[in-house]
Amino acid sequence: MKLTRHLIAGGVASMLGMALASGAMAQEIQPATDTSAFVFNSILFLISGMVVMFMAAGFCMLEVGMVRSKNAATICLKNISLYSIAGLMVWLFGYDFIYGVSEGGFITTDFFLWMSDDQGSAVEQIAVGYAAHSDWYFQMVFVATAASIVSGTLAERIKLLPFLIFTAALTGFIYPIQAGWQWGGGWLAAGGFSDFAGSTLVHSTGGWAALMGAIILGPRLGKYMDGKVSAMPGSNLPLATLGTFILWLGWFGFNGGSQLAAGTADDIIAVATIFVNTNTAAAAGVVAAMIASHFLYKKVDLTLALNGAIGGLVSITAEPLAPVIWEAAFIGAVGGVLVCLAVPLLDKLKIDDVVGAIPAHLVCGIWGTLIVPLSNAGTNIGWQIIGVVSIGAFVSIVSALVWVILKFTIGIRASEADEQVGLDKAELGLEAYPEFRAG
Amino acid sequence: MKLTRHLIAGGVASMLGMALASGAMAQEIQPATDTSAFVFNSILFLISGMVVMFMAAGFCMLEVGMVRSKNAATICLKNISLYSIAGLMVWLFGYDFIYGVSEGGFITTDFFLWMSDDQGSAVEQIAVGYAAHSDWYFQMVFVATAASIVSGTLAERIKLLPFLIFTAALTGFIYPIQAGWQWGGGWLAAGGFSDFAGSTLVHSTGGWAALMGAIILGPRLGKYMDGKVSAMPGSNLPLATLGTFILWLGWFGFNGGSQLAAGTADDIIAVATIFVNTNTAAAAGVVAAMIASHFLYKKVDLTLALNGAIGGLVSITAEPLAPVIWEAAFIGAVGGVLVCLAVPLLDKLKIDDVVGAIPAHLVCGIWGTLIVPLSNAGTNIGWQIIGVVSIGAFVSIVSALVWVILKFTIGIRASEADEQVGLDKAELGLEAYPEFRAG
Amino acid sequence: MKLTRHLIAGGVASMLGMALASGAMAQEIQPATDTSAFVFNSILFLISGMVVMFMAAGFCMLEVGMVRSKNAATICLKNISLYSIAGLMVWLFGYDFIYGVSEGGFITTDFFLWMSDDQGSAVEQIAVGYAAHSDWYFQMVFVATAASIVSGTLAERIKLLPFLIFTAALTGFIYPIQAGWQWGGGWLAAGGFSDFAGSTLVHSTGGWAALMGAIILGPRLGKYMDGKVSAMPGSNLPLATLGTFILWLGWFGFNGGSQLAAGTADDIIAVATIFVNTNTAAAAGVVAAMIASHFLYKKVDLTLALNGAIGGLVSITAEPLAPVIWEAAFIGAVGGVLVCLAVPLLDKLKIDDVVGAIPAHLVCGIWGTLIVPLSNAGTNIGWQIIGVVSIGAFVSIVSALVWVILKFTIGIRASEADEQVGLDKAELGLEAYPEFRAG
Repeated sequence: MKLTRHLIAGGVASMLGMALASGAMAQEIQPATDTSAFVFNSILFLISGMVVMFMAAGFCMLEVGMVRSKNAATICLKNISLYSIAGLMVWLFGYDFIYGVSEGGFITTDFFLWMSDDQGSAVEQIAVGYAAHSDWYFQMVFVATAASIVSGTLAERIKLLPFLIFTAALTGFIYPIQAGWQWGGGWLAAGGFSDFAGSTLVHSTGGWAALMGAIILGPRLGKYMDGKVSAMPGSNLPLATLGTFILWLGWFGFNGGSQLAAGTADDIIAVATIFVNTNTAAAAGVVAAMIASHFLYKKVDLTLALNGAIGGLVSITAEPLAPVIWEAAFIGAVGGVLVCLAVPLLDKLKIDDVVGAIPAHLVCGIWGTLIVPLSNAGTNIGWQIIGVVSIGAFVSIVSALVWVILKFTIGIRASEADEQVGLDKAELGLEAYPEFRAG
Repeated sequence: MKLTRHLIAGGVASMLGMALASGAMAQEIQPATDTSAFVFNSILFLISGMVVMFMAAGFCMLEVGMVRSKNAATICLKNISLYSIAGLMVWLFGYDFIYGVSEGGFITTDFFLWMSDDQGSAVEQIAVGYAAHSDWYFQMVFVATAASIVSGTLAERIKLLPFLIFTAALTGFIYPIQAGWQWGGGWLAAGGFSDFAGSTLVHSTGGWAALMGAIILGPRLGKYMDGKVSAMPGSNLPLATLGTFILWLGWFGFNGGSQLAAGTADDIIAVATIFVNTNTAAAAGVVAAMIASHFLYKKVDLTLALNGAIGGLVSITAEPLAPVIWEAAFIGAVGGVLVCLAVPLLDKLKIDDVVGAIPAHLVCGIWGTLIVPLSNAGTNIGWQIIGVVSIGAFVSIVSALVWVILKFTIGIRASEADEQVGLDKAELGLEAYPEFRAG
Repeated sequence: MKLTRHLIAGGVASMLGMALASGAMAQEIQPATDTSAFVFNSILFLISGMVVMFMAAGFCMLEVGMVRSKNAATICLKNISLYSIAGLMVWLFGYDFIYGVSEGGFITTDFFLWMSDDQGSAVEQIAVGYAAHSDWYFQMVFVATAASIVSGTLAERIKLLPFLIFTAALTGFIYPIQAGWQWGGGWLAAGGFSDFAGSTLVHSTGGWAALMGAIILGPRLGKYMDGKVSAMPGSNLPLATLGTFILWLGWFGFNGGSQLAAGTADDIIAVATIFVNTNTAAAAGVVAAMIASHFLYKKVDLTLALNGAIGGLVSITAEPLAPVIWEAAFIGAVGGVLVCLAVPLLDKLKIDDVVGAIPAHLVCGIWGTLIVPLSNAGTNIGWQIIGVVSIGAFVSIVSALVWVILKFTIGIRASEADEQVGLDKAELGLEAYPEFRAG
């Protein structure tokens, strides 16, 4: 059942191709031994998981660079604690909801999977194909990624505690339930939805949760005044750039590791192809965003170039294996342009997304998912739409519900005074850069 | 003899389990070939070593974020030079002291091991199990880690030259001698001490050396005045956060690589288990430190959350393989709380630890070592205490001796004037952030 | 033909040694299967490529830390866009020029290699030895490295657009043509030139292109006035230090991955040896630069220590496998000293290299290439000189031509007003640190 993600992901056409290639190969090429394939598969999860884990640092740097310095320490605290909460919630609840779902089902019927399971002997694990803990680690860092997306959008005005509670709900339940629909072998997988590494399951999910939060929380004080948009520039663009590079690095693990196997020639060829397509989409996203921002704003904007990279990466995530290289470039370039268009659109709607996470993760996540049939003939645009809409509806409704409950219980918005002085002083009692403030 | 670290580390119970599993497996599963296992083992050292090497950057960022900006460039210079000195001293002396010790012995009798040894043919190296240079690289980055711990504690008032001389003594002799007692197959290993990846051998060793330095060097000017503790907040908390994330990333290599093998199903399953336990302990350390700091100080402190992560990581390092996941969470959570308790205790003792390295590395290193018998029934609390005390005594006495000799020869403390103007201007003649100082 | 880089790199002597060792081994040791060796080789490219990709972040941080804050955002934009442009240009043109050259030839005769080629079946790729896309990825990140070198030297006064156009020319044509001479199996490879991982092909190439740009562009306003050199200190040395650590990390992939294979015992032993030599050369470079700067300038300079690391790394890059460890230390130490000598020399010549890239990459690249015969008896100093001179002449002449054409068409130099206000405000309309400027 765990392999569902893999079997679905590759698509029928490429699976047939692989079967044929493997058949041919068996005659000529000596395969890896069972044990070697097992080690290769596990190593793929562990190394990919490490760089995806490091994406938590990337999101943190991107966000800390994009906020004003008076909220920088709070963003750091949110990012290290959301990664920690994700790690604990996936253990306590999340893993059950991703993988406990029955075939074609909607929700887990199998609780305490991880806690009761001793993961089996080496012989049993080899039969599955990879070390059970390596898969768990890889899935866990994916959940953390979705949570990272939310913190940036809601920065500079959300209180710490409700954010942490929402993070627990997102990583323990909301993300896992919808991930179970596809990667756990639930109804979307049974139907024919295709989302290789999570344009929809990870990035749009984070994006929908962020969007609901942004609407319910409202914009920062003074962001939209008298019909004008106040700029509120990020306080440390070099760190935002570093964060983007770290995310780019991590994406090789994010997409490459989602091949879920590296122990056959076909699998490692697939991983290598994914690396090239992932890089090409990101590169095209940067160049396209630079060109688009030049025409739209008469200048080349650094933050749009950075978000262009992320937009390109999110766009290729739904299908990084099937495209030939020009298709990858096209998919990524459109992602970069979409970011440049979505940023002003959100401002027009007075939805305040501090770091531009909704354009990069939600908009490009939808685009990437819908364009899968271009390169992967085995997929069906109808099921792609069903996947995007059903996951969007589920995540949006449940997220909104959680946000509203939090709003009317402990409250989610910092006081005006706290927002003005900055959350660092107000909530943490310290400053991120105590010596550098000119004031 | 080099494998001593591995054989001891796994513990008798788990070794028996592995032997049984391997026996069962041999009947059903085709093992990796000799050559594949050799490559897997060597790759484990090389990749783990790379991320442990990157921990040098993590310590540097953590420390540079925690000091005041007038000492930031000096901390950068100390960190890149301590890593360099470690690399050279391990080559010239350290490796001999770690691995030249006779079985059950106290100190090497075999000098110039590395310099005279051509490491043998491929056939001979395969018989050992891994590429000789891959093991050397992995050991070297561990030594550098211990040295990194010292620089943070002593920041902002120690002169550059004596720090570098102490680093050479620590990395060439002090660390290697006590590491030889255990990982070189010396008397602690023979007795039954267990320290899988170095809670005591690496982290407490660095911590004791730092503690002796802090006592002999004295606190920063104005730190403890009229019975009050002056806060002296770090100048760049986003970089401190980045450093913590880098350390967290590196710890997967630190603990995972300490399995010392990845060429069998059992070994890679062990590595994967170590990844999950390491991450869980760190996550629990963060959450526990946040809760503890909320109750102790009525606020959630970012720097305590960061040190909570490190405390959790150090705590699980003595035994990251044997715990089930809730044990890992418990061990890490206690580590996070210990950090919150030890920080004010040090201030009460007027021991000035600029970055909180003694709480995170020494206190949690002791805790992690003593709690090993909880999860690993093959270990003995008596030998755990003997290991902690003997290494603590040895490192403290020799470190204190070196610090005292340095103090009464070239001097270790910067002049009052230099400390006030900052070591960057005084010793390096430059500033870390020449444009950002409000003054 | 793609393997040319490997076959040449190892040198005749070491190849003979390997053949003998392999022969002996075949009798005793069971080799990896074809498929395992194929996966190991591909993994070496992918993992090495990931850390080399991350060097783009390292260069970005090094450069952003070395420029004044008014030009920091522009350097960030240049670094993320140059990496992107490299990714696209290697696809569109560069790969053809590296690998389309006929044996012993000067320039490709085979266009659209990558675009028309479906890379073959798994069986065909196994016959080559590695996944085609993994090799492409590894080559691409090398090209980006060369381009990264240029941006630092020319910072703070070059306009964005001509820099990007030059980057396209360098990554699509200039670098690939000369790389084809050696790694594509062209005339230099046929003659006997040896450059294992690119001291000349990558680092000197970037250095020559930067030197030509610096001469044609001229120094920054006020840099050389009335016979004095104005210091213009970097605005963020912690980020420069982080960048250096990232580069050091990436270099293990840069040099280690250039073994091009990891599927035999000999290959992984070679990779491990390369790791140790690379680290030792860098460490020796740091220590030597610190000592040299102490004697030359009566202080230990952080930026020289950082460039000493890079100088050591560049120096060992032409032959990181053959040296014994003291040779690696010697080669790196001389590199560190050369950096300290070349920095004031450039200032005497009024060539303004903002980050010291020419000393570290060009001067040490030449040194590293010429010293190869010390450790690798299979190489010939005559061919080393021919390689250095021919590539230097080609890259310098063509680069100068491109710079001159750009100068007299769209112009390469920012206006005096733009330079004074800073390129961030002038070209991007934003600031890197809008809250931190004291003014």
